[in-house]
Amino acid sequence: MTRQLRDPLTVRRLPEKQVIDRSVLDAVLDESLVAHVAVPRASRHGTAVVPVGVARSRDELLIHGSTASQAFRTLATGVPTCVTVTLLDGVVVARSQFESSMQYRSAMVFGSFSVLCGRDKSAALAVLAAKLLPGLTGAREPAPKELAATLVLSLPLDEWSLKVSDGDPEDADSDLDREVWAGVVPLHRSWGDPVTAPDLRHDLEPPAALKDWTPRG
Amino acid sequence: MTRQLRDPLTVRRLPEKQVIDRSVLDAVLDESLVAHVAVPRASRHGTAVVPVGVARSRDELLIHGSTASQAFRTLATGVPTCVTVTLLDGVVVARSQFESSMQYRSAMVFGSFSVLCGRDKSAALAVLAAKLLPGLTGAREPAPKELAATLVLSLPLDEWSLKVSDGDPEDADSDLDREVWAGVVPLHRSWGDPVTAPDLRHDLEPPAALKDWTPRG
Repeated sequence: MTRQLRDPLTVRRLPEKQVIDRSVLDAVLDESLVAHVAVPRASRHGTAVVPVGVARSRDELLIHGSTASQAFRTLATGVPTCVTVTLLDGVVVARSQFESSMQYRSAMVFGSFSVLCGRDKSAALAVLAAKLLPGLTGAREPAPKELAATLVLSLPLDEWSLKVSDGDPEDADSDLDREVWAGVVPLHRSWGDPVTAPDLRHDLEPPAALKDWTPRG
Repeated sequence: MTRQLRDPLTVRRLPEKQVIDRSVLDAVLDESLVAHVAVPRASRHGTAVVPVGVARSRDELLIHGSTASQAFRTLATGVPTCVTVTLLDGVVVARSQFESSMQYRSAMVFGSFSVLCGRDKSAALAVLAAKLLPGLTGAREPAPKELAATLVLSLPLDEWSLKVSDGDPEDADSDLDREVWAGVVPLHRSWGDPVTAPDLRHDLEPPAALKDWTPRG
């Protein structure tokens, strides 16, 4: 389906950090393994913020979960929601606490999820598996019973905003003479050595593709 | 203030992953630099999920932001909210896609923020600075004008739930003979080498404490 792409939403707070380039949004979504989703009326306390694994397919965000999950059942009804991904890239140490901050890339997508069925559902699960288990194509694909127990939801990338903070500390002139270090401490994500399952029955090495797997967060 | 601590909320989905040990909650909150907060009526689209820096002080979660931030102004009115922190610890690769999952520690705190003032506000900002800029005590403390431009909000750790997923893949017996690798790929967070600000006027090294700074995420 071809969709007319809309302009991103306007960011009110720190608008100078807003990025309207769709390719940057895609990169942030593709690098994020986990999103936080607003689930209305999730409890007697009101809206819950729920972490979910996330993948992008063209102009859609995809999530999947159990049909036994109250959160997924609520989202499947098409309630308005917000999905946020945040990549924390570093801490910005200024000469004042007030100007100290963080380097980050954060995207918000607003809208309502749709339930995917049939071939769309299977295709979306393949995208999720390729994203969340990259290079690990040996895992058995879902059986009909497993498919029936899984909700796969799609959110169009129509209403979104993106903020990127990647600069140096911006101290006031009056603070620049202070004899205190200032700069950025980057935060890195990396994959550790794979740990083989204790019940593995064959003498198998972890897939070679793991070594080239890009760190994501 | 001494508060009667309540039992954690009941987790409905995957209750076997629920942890009710308050010290584990504290450890998860203390390791998380960023939380995702539900902000009701943040836009014409409804509730937004907003990333914020977070710290814990005893039985309270602390966040701070600009008085110019619509999100912080809304939270300051005491609307019901949910604050979620998620530490992604690894990917669990099973012999089926269906049983593949993630290792994570995730906490949800429900309630309403209160605005901190006076000495409570200053003390909370010191806790936030110590958490988010550890060892970097050289940064100038907030001036009165900066304090006036900052909202510091506190959420009691009364209504919370915590889920920890740290196990091996749990494949069905019928999948155990499949000749495919299974196990866990850990996700690590680490601090990179500090990058000194280009406008630093003194010949200063990054604080030594940075080297001992525990990776957080």
